[in-house]
Amino acid sequence: MPDKFTSYEERAKRHPNPAAKALLETIVRKKSNLCVSVDVTGKADFLNIIDIVGPYVCLIKTHVDIIEDFDASIIDRLQELSKQHDFLIFEDRKFADIGNTVALQYSSGVHKIASWSHITNAHPVPGPSIITGLSSVGKPLGRGLLLLAEMSTKGSLATGSYTEEAVKMARAHRDFVIGFIAQRSMNGVGKDTADTTDDDFLVLTPGVGLDSKGDAMGQQYRTPEEVLRDGCDVIIVGRGIYGKGPSVDIQSVREQAERYRSAGWSAYEKLL
Amino acid sequence: MPDKFTSYEERAKRHPNPAAKALLETIVRKKSNLCVSVDVTGKADFLNIIDIVGPYVCLIKTHVDIIEDFDASIIDRLQELSKQHDFLIFEDRKFADIGNTVALQYSSGVHKIASWSHITNAHPVPGPSIITGLSSVGKPLGRGLLLLAEMSTKGSLATGSYTEEAVKMARAHRDFVIGFIAQRSMNGVGKDTADTTDDDFLVLTPGVGLDSKGDAMGQQYRTPEEVLRDGCDVIIVGRGIYGKGPSVDIQSVREQAERYRSAGWSAYEKLL
Repeated sequence: MPDKFTSYEERAKRHPNPAAKALLETIVRKKSNLCVSVDVTGKADFLNIIDIVGPYVCLIKTHVDIIEDFDASIIDRLQELSKQHDFLIFEDRKFADIGNTVALQYSSGVHKIASWSHITNAHPVPGPSIITGLSSVGKPLGRGLLLLAEMSTKGSLATGSYTEEAVKMARAHRDFVIGFIAQRSMNGVGKDTADTTDDDFLVLTPGVGLDSKGDAMGQQYRTPEEVLRDGCDVIIVGRGIYGKGPSVDIQSVREQAERYRSAGWSAYEKLL
Repeated sequence: MPDKFTSYEERAKRHPNPAAKALLETIVRKKSNLCVSVDVTGKADFLNIIDIVGPYVCLIKTHVDIIEDFDASIIDRLQELSKQHDFLIFEDRKFADIGNTVALQYSSGVHKIASWSHITNAHPVPGPSIITGLSSVGKPLGRGLLLLAEMSTKGSLATGSYTEEAVKMARAHRDFVIGFIAQRSMNGVGKDTADTTDDDFLVLTPGVGLDSKGDAMGQQYRTPEEVLRDGCDVIIVGRGIYGKGPSVDIQSVREQAERYRSAGWSAYEKLL
């Protein structure tokens, strides 16, 4: 574990994985550690929200499997927006199957996630074969994988030795696993003392909110300051930015995106 | 836990969940506890294999997200085959997200799983909210959910207290959780002694093979006799039936399906 807090810039310079490096560089360039999670079921809303929040984010998190009118043109447009607004794409697929199956789910089907998503994620529960399977597809494309070491939901089983094993698995696959979905820094967790290599895992943190403390389905919220102080690198915000209503209020979404970008960046600067 | 071994027939009579009841009745009617896992990426092969093995199975397990040329007509045809050959459908989605997200993934998107899949499954790792989310969609449709209490891969983290917590979650949601993907009976596991209700969880078991002992990506195999003796109810077989080659040999697939059906049923009859 690095002795002191290291800037995104320093970490970008030395990170070996191309997706992690690109993300860190984007964070610095845009002064944004904000990832917006776009969980809507219509193509038009999906692309509209991304176009509005794009200038304020380093990363857009998607669930393309909930989009009713999904077709290949959505991906084309998403990639255009990614270039235009300078953000990376993270399909939050939460792969959780055996190696052979996840390799097919990642590369194939109607969604072809590996072909457009810079970063994706997986649960470590099947054991190391899930990483091997995904890596066989993603590593040649310069992709990066996050493991779910913890979850922010009530009664999560990703705790204790589960979390430690997840970090050990990541450490054994540093070429492809770039970090975690977690609530705190995972550097040094469950570490074998014989391993003297520094950890530099990215930590992306959902359940971040400036206003609300929880929802009816078990999600719990913390502020950007709280999570950055605990070693998180990227804050993930969804409905807190584009609201719960059926229509998208452009001005309000833009203001909330800037509000969260600013809150996330201030929280980071306090730690420097 | 029931004191003695109970027949599929007896269990079908008293199971409260419609999907579990239908599966048990199908097993009895067809003398088959065989589920074929159809993990191919082309629509034609997918439907062809299901048409060939259909007469020998109680259940077809799908991964529709790996099918390259997926469209709604595949589901129409799958449902026709399900009626014609008398089997149920199990989309092996391994849901693993928070309640709100899995509810959308289950109901929406291009795949609309809840509308056609009698049974699906989920990892318990997010905590009980994953069950609440899926149940809000599936229970009104008469669907059933399996939890992944164990996995057959090397280095799986679904062991010990993780497995116990999974069973407790299932027990707290008996109306929708009908059983487990696991390697042994889960009745009575992690049970609070104050709860005197009998468990009757279905156990579906992957990693069953008559010939091979493992693959390169961490999958391990056991025989039908071994898994039935350990309290499993349905054997899941994939490549062991339709082979690893690019083409489907109809006669060979039919023979293997009957071979596994017969082996699974003999293993069951020995226990009666």
